[in-house]
Amino acid sequence: MRYRLGCELDYEVEADDTPFVFNIEAQRRPGQEIETERLVLSPELPLERFDMPESGNRYFRLCAGRGKLTLRYEASVTLRPAAIDPAEVREVPAGRLPLEALTHLYPSRYVEADLLRQFAEKEFGGLPRGHERVTAICNWLHDHLDYVPGSSDEQTSARDTLLQRQGICRDFAHLGIAFCRALGIPARFVSAYAWRLSPPDFHAVLEAWLEGPEGGSWFLFDPTRKSAADGLVRIGVGRDAAEVAFCSPFGPTGYGKPKVWIEAPDRPAEGPLTTRAVSLVSR
Amino acid sequence: MRYRLGCELDYEVEADDTPFVFNIEAQRRPGQEIETERLVLSPELPLERFDMPESGNRYFRLCAGRGKLTLRYEASVTLRPAAIDPAEVREVPAGRLPLEALTHLYPSRYVEADLLRQFAEKEFGGLPRGHERVTAICNWLHDHLDYVPGSSDEQTSARDTLLQRQGICRDFAHLGIAFCRALGIPARFVSAYAWRLSPPDFHAVLEAWLEGPEGGSWFLFDPTRKSAADGLVRIGVGRDAAEVAFCSPFGPTGYGKPKVWIEAPDRPAEGPLTTRAVSLVSR
Amino acid sequence: MRYRLGCELDYEVEADDTPFVFNIEAQRRPGQEIETERLVLSPELPLERFDMPESGNRYFRLCAGRGKLTLRYEASVTLRPAAIDPAEVREVPAGRLPLEALTHLYPSRYVEADLLRQFAEKEFGGLPRGHERVTAICNWLHDHLDYVPGSSDEQTSARDTLLQRQGICRDFAHLGIAFCRALGIPARFVSAYAWRLSPPDFHAVLEAWLEGPEGGSWFLFDPTRKSAADGLVRIGVGRDAAEVAFCSPFGPTGYGKPKVWIEAPDRPAEGPLTTRAVSLVSR
Amino acid sequence: MRYRLGCELDYEVEADDTPFVFNIEAQRRPGQEIETERLVLSPELPLERFDMPESGNRYFRLCAGRGKLTLRYEASVTLRPAAIDPAEVREVPAGRLPLEALTHLYPSRYVEADLLRQFAEKEFGGLPRGHERVTAICNWLHDHLDYVPGSSDEQTSARDTLLQRQGICRDFAHLGIAFCRALGIPARFVSAYAWRLSPPDFHAVLEAWLEGPEGGSWFLFDPTRKSAADGLVRIGVGRDAAEVAFCSPFGPTGYGKPKVWIEAPDRPAEGPLTTRAVSLVSR
Repeated sequence: MRYRLGCELDYEVEADDTPFVFNIEAQRRPGQEIETERLVLSPELPLERFDMPESGNRYFRLCAGRGKLTLRYEASVTLRPAAIDPAEVREVPAGRLPLEALTHLYPSRYVEADLLRQFAEKEFGGLPRGHERVTAICNWLHDHLDYVPGSSDEQTSARDTLLQRQGICRDFAHLGIAFCRALGIPARFVSAYAWRLSPPDFHAVLEAWLEGPEGGSWFLFDPTRKSAADGLVRIGVGRDAAEVAFCSPFGPTGYGKPKVWIEAPDRPAEGPLTTRAVSLVSR
Repeated sequence: MRYRLGCELDYEVEADDTPFVFNIEAQRRPGQEIETERLVLSPELPLERFDMPESGNRYFRLCAGRGKLTLRYEASVTLRPAAIDPAEVREVPAGRLPLEALTHLYPSRYVEADLLRQFAEKEFGGLPRGHERVTAICNWLHDHLDYVPGSSDEQTSARDTLLQRQGICRDFAHLGIAFCRALGIPARFVSAYAWRLSPPDFHAVLEAWLEGPEGGSWFLFDPTRKSAADGLVRIGVGRDAAEVAFCSPFGPTGYGKPKVWIEAPDRPAEGPLTTRAVSLVSR
Repeated sequence: MRYRLGCELDYEVEADDTPFVFNIEAQRRPGQEIETERLVLSPELPLERFDMPESGNRYFRLCAGRGKLTLRYEASVTLRPAAIDPAEVREVPAGRLPLEALTHLYPSRYVEADLLRQFAEKEFGGLPRGHERVTAICNWLHDHLDYVPGSSDEQTSARDTLLQRQGICRDFAHLGIAFCRALGIPARFVSAYAWRLSPPDFHAVLEAWLEGPEGGSWFLFDPTRKSAADGLVRIGVGRDAAEVAFCSPFGPTGYGKPKVWIEAPDRPAEGPLTTRAVSLVSR
Repeated sequence: MRYRLGCELDYEVEADDTPFVFNIEAQRRPGQEIETERLVLSPELPLERFDMPESGNRYFRLCAGRGKLTLRYEASVTLRPAAIDPAEVREVPAGRLPLEALTHLYPSRYVEADLLRQFAEKEFGGLPRGHERVTAICNWLHDHLDYVPGSSDEQTSARDTLLQRQGICRDFAHLGIAFCRALGIPARFVSAYAWRLSPPDFHAVLEAWLEGPEGGSWFLFDPTRKSAADGLVRIGVGRDAAEVAFCSPFGPTGYGKPKVWIEAPDRPAEGPLTTRAVSLVSR
């Protein structure tokens, strides 16, 4: 399925030579192919690029002068998600996890998996393992948390969200990742262009490492149920939100609300959203 | 019903003139009458007494010299709990709460009721109000927390317990009090001699301010289900554990495990414990 | 010295029969005498009063109907602070503290004295004891914290303030109280009408229990250095801010910024403010 | 300089097929060359190896049966630290940092750099920048924290350490890293064999990304002052301790205290330790 997506970002830079690092471009990975893309800066500025090998995140840096800075990114991306029967998707025991996935069992700044081990064990320890268990975690999040814009901030962590019982997509993802890691399931944070998300914005979901009939993969889940897991174009993956900020300015900067869009010309944007997490293979 | 109870405490005082404050004596209050009591210190030392008017707690202070210090307290106490049909026990709206009970709506060191408001509201906000709702809270604690000696320490608060899903009597009480306060029910911490608690020790439970047919009272609840609410002889009441330590030494001191006992000569110590919280009026 | 003070509070009550508890009236205590006072409500409503014996706080409750609610409080108060040479004001060892002051050694919701014991001991443990040490704590707060309106919220505690290194009067007071308690000095939170505070508002300071030539008293300190300790008219005292809110509504309510004023007709409001904490005896 | 080092680890595995991941082998990197090394397992078991590209950490995994498990690692390693005049070592502004180092500006589980920004800014913001400023941070840690074995646990983070003012090498490193990141200096956690550490054990120090006359490098600092920065053989580097555990068992396991050793046959182990952090280039 083909998607046309993009974003437009506006800044008011308040000091000379202010560096910015951005992570807004769609990843290139199997199952997610970029057909065309275009990045326009105003004023025009030289870019320095860095694709992080372990994540595939595409960062670029620029140094802006005082005044207005505008970025416009547009891309046409084809997603070919592998649709696998969830019943055939298993958890992978620690002895067989790829060693590079072990990193995603560790606790991180916004995902205190070590503190939530008892909680996760008591709520989800006895459930059948596999795709089904991660889905159960996402259902729990949907049922126990309220989605409330403005109810959290940049310092809110999984622990806070569990107590406050509310948050935004970022918080749902963090708590879901925490529960997965606490149960021994590698999980990571994903920023994405999310088809049918309303209102349109950058979205945050999670990926868990599971194993289908053809091997291990990162499977996508959206515990907010605000997007279709098969309509997510990934931008950045990381341990948690700390690693995939779409913009990191290194100096005083004003900004407007980002404009974000994604359309699927060949797919009807009507009917009920998938309300359960579905699997997307993306090796 | 008559109870014979007491404790024996041993200390190894490591500095001259070390002050100690104790709160080990049974309260005198309607429904809890002390028939006889005896306090023996070795070595003999002068005591300074203070009964706190707002709580009825009986504190005493002594200054011990270097070396061994032993206290033995014995009492015979009669409890006359008012047994009220729980269905007739209601919550009291803020407009009619006695103003001196309002204090017990505030958050305190180990009871961060303000942080748990959403959690309490989502879990218990929709339940029928009254004795029944506090019982539902206690049942939730019993079902969601493990009682694990050694799993918490002196700094563990209600918030921590909710995340760690385990604790001891102190922690069960703190979290129960937090949920009550978050819902607008005044609640406080109670230390007690607890009949049939096994192994015998100082126990911690909670009281909630509710209203029976004859008026408002503090009703007792034991969310650990380890004691009978009608077999509790109260020692100290306070906002939380910070206020009712049985011993506060002001200097380096070694100590042995306290010996604590309580017997009911006229009541059979067999059969199932009351497994649901029961009410005890004690105006 | 005579002060004329008061406040005017405006609310938009959004539900019928909404209870409010207020604590805005000046305390009556030795050294702080109320000559005249007047409380005007619009609409006129019956009040229920409660003076808390252990604190002297004067609470009143009313039940407001939907719509506008306005309170205006005015008083004329004479302060007769005891001016004692700080060098003669000592700390009181635990063995001689009045037992009712011991409560103010305990940690409370916003004053985690137990967590800051090492910090306090390392910063202030070696300093000369007495009024001088509490002054050193206040100076430390003044030098290490920034006073930044809007930098904290209702859940900010002493621990948070120590890390964030900024706050408002409430936060300065909480951290100062935490350090005092951690060092064995009973300390409590005080809300006040503060002469020369700019802009005028309810103010928060702290009191420490110390001992002058004529005995023990609560001594006032303002670590923000925004008011004169001898120009503070106390409203509420308590373990921390949780206990002395000037208004606690029990229902959805809009409100405007309170108008607060205090004048000293016979005292010049010019010249440098006392920049060091000074002592005020108020047994 | 040549070092002979190693460790011996003993486990009592309590379940069949228990996976273990180890990170005990010295890194191979410029300036740290492994001449010989040997790993002996008892019982003999097949190993699966993974060298993490971005860190150089050498992990291996094995699956142990129930019963005793012993590992012995021995290596002979040559260190060729670049000794650079600290005065020539500068901080690198964000606009020129290598993009792969940006990861080490993010907060992580035990390094809440985002929460300590104000603290770091107030303590170190005004100091001269460069190697000197990181040294000032290390000196601050040495002066303000007590090194107290047993004073922290696996959940202790930089924030906790700052409040508790005590910890072990792990805690000193975490807080130092937090201050660096808060100031815009990339910093990471390093586990090491540390020459002259007493008693011998795995040690934890920190690396900061700075720039000498020949370019940017990770410079080593030991804020505990318990080892010589030029006598550290690196094992694992990572965002914080979560990423460089020397042993991660995935099942119930008993263990003894690890035996760890390091000797420098050609270097006198006497005389004063370097008491200031020194620089070691290791591109």
